[in-house]
Amino acid sequence: MSGHSVTVAEKVGRAIMERDASSRFLGVSLEEIRPGYARMSMTVTAEMLNGLGMCHGGFTYTLADDAFAYACNSHNRNAVAVNCTISYPAAARLGDRLIAEGVEVHRKGRSGTYDVTVANQDGEVVALFRGQCRVIDGHVVGEDG
Amino acid sequence: MSGHSVTVAEKVGRAIMERDASSRFLGVSLEEIRPGYARMSMTVTAEMLNGLGMCHGGFTYTLADDAFAYACNSHNRNAVAVNCTISYPAAARLGDRLIAEGVEVHRKGRSGTYDVTVANQDGEVVALFRGQCRVIDGHVVGEDG
Amino acid sequence: MSGHSVTVAEKVGRAIMERDASSRFLGVSLEEIRPGYARMSMTVTAEMLNGLGMCHGGFTYTLADDAFAYACNSHNRNAVAVNCTISYPAAARLGDRLIAEGVEVHRKGRSGTYDVTVANQDGEVVALFRGQCRVIDGHVVGEDG
Amino acid sequence: MSGHSVTVAEKVGRAIMERDASSRFLGVSLEEIRPGYARMSMTVTAEMLNGLGMCHGGFTYTLADDAFAYACNSHNRNAVAVNCTISYPAAARLGDRLIAEGVEVHRKGRSGTYDVTVANQDGEVVALFRGQCRVIDGHVVGEDG
Repeated sequence: MSGHSVTVAEKVGRAIMERDASSRFLGVSLEEIRPGYARMSMTVTAEMLNGLGMCHGGFTYTLADDAFAYACNSHNRNAVAVNCTISYPAAARLGDRLIAEGVEVHRKGRSGTYDVTVANQDGEVVALFRGQCRVIDGHVVGEDG
Repeated sequence: MSGHSVTVAEKVGRAIMERDASSRFLGVSLEEIRPGYARMSMTVTAEMLNGLGMCHGGFTYTLADDAFAYACNSHNRNAVAVNCTISYPAAARLGDRLIAEGVEVHRKGRSGTYDVTVANQDGEVVALFRGQCRVIDGHVVGEDG
Repeated sequence: MSGHSVTVAEKVGRAIMERDASSRFLGVSLEEIRPGYARMSMTVTAEMLNGLGMCHGGFTYTLADDAFAYACNSHNRNAVAVNCTISYPAAARLGDRLIAEGVEVHRKGRSGTYDVTVANQDGEVVALFRGQCRVIDGHVVGEDG
Repeated sequence: MSGHSVTVAEKVGRAIMERDASSRFLGVSLEEIRPGYARMSMTVTAEMLNGLGMCHGGFTYTLADDAFAYACNSHNRNAVAVNCTISYPAAARLGDRLIAEGVEVHRKGRSGTYDVTVANQDGEVVALFRGQCRVIDGHVVGEDG
């Protein structure tokens, strides 16, 4: 992928992040964005714990959904989630540094499929997420980036 | 369902909610719990908005996942999520009062399937969620409730 | 729903079934079709058994997918599958008479969600299926039915 | 992975295939099996066409599910499907030679997740499948292979 494409993807990432109140609320960071790829991170705080004292799967999902959203918008074509599926091979715990890596599995016409793997600081997988998106009209940033 | 069962389900709900930091963080309330059923609510705040100015699907998911978790633990048998799927027929917006209603579709042996519908204050459906759980050893509250 | 709508749904069902080689191949019958609803049946034959001597989940899926397809086309608007999810609470066995009942959970604009429950002759649930469809241009039968 | 493991996986594949009536019925072949991996193929016949004249998604699913089943049993530990999700980026057509490639995404304890991609003879992807399995007691072939 060309240097130009990477630059557009980064502009898209920055543009979404600037307007993204939820990422500030949860402390989600965009670590890297390229065409069809995004890596996000988040630390599990005490507010994120459920009744079992473990990270509520909803926050892990939110992080994974972010990596999906940034990856599927990285081509600077607006896209929305159609369907998301998640499973949790292991629990995330207080203080864990979670990394979500979203990769494009398939994209054709107005449809795309993305897999996100969320792992903790030890590389243990805590969530496996698959999302389908639909490309809609419009761009995230101006055509000139 | 017997009055006794309802009481145990309510005790389960109260016990989980007491320890549930995430529900306090997001303002999630348990409205009703019965065997195989839970209804939860949450108001969309400014912190929950994504880069498009709409409620991040992760918070809607979290609410739905709560209704699932409370419903599948309502029999006072510990249960964990195996797989969750969600789609978003409409966007949730700032100030929306979301109601998530979780119902048991099927339960047999150590497996259960639950559907959660999340609607806004106008009854518009903003999320359709299906979760599978696996029953593990142990109880949420003492056998005597 | 009006008698007229029911009639159109039945015409749609008959029109698809006439061209449907796979249903003849597997012995799938359309038992009932109404707007947003279809019920199909199939008997598990020896050819459908997998290496464990039980009905291959693929045939159960095929029956469920049929109920989904007929239900989501019942409004006489062409529709295609976007995503399907299935789980198997119990095994289907040789000679079982399977009934798949597909119901419309939600439909709005060009999107729809359908749940299909597949049960055997004793009412035991052997599959839980959820499908999302997307409505595309065109009709199954002429506008006049 | 050692030569020994590969041999056991192949013995598992042969043992399941010998008893697998459904694969003979649909003309499904096992092309390759290794620990955590299986590749299957099938040609779309006239009997597999639906009312639209295209391959019924149920047969594509069946092929994908086979690749999943063989891959998740390849370690010679009995495993059963917990949940399967599929989407169809393109239609499969009469005469298409479909190849399903199943790979292990994650496996830990008694749970595993497998992704299957089904492509036609031109490499066009016609289905994306994800399956979760649960390992149960017992082995497919004797411990000595």
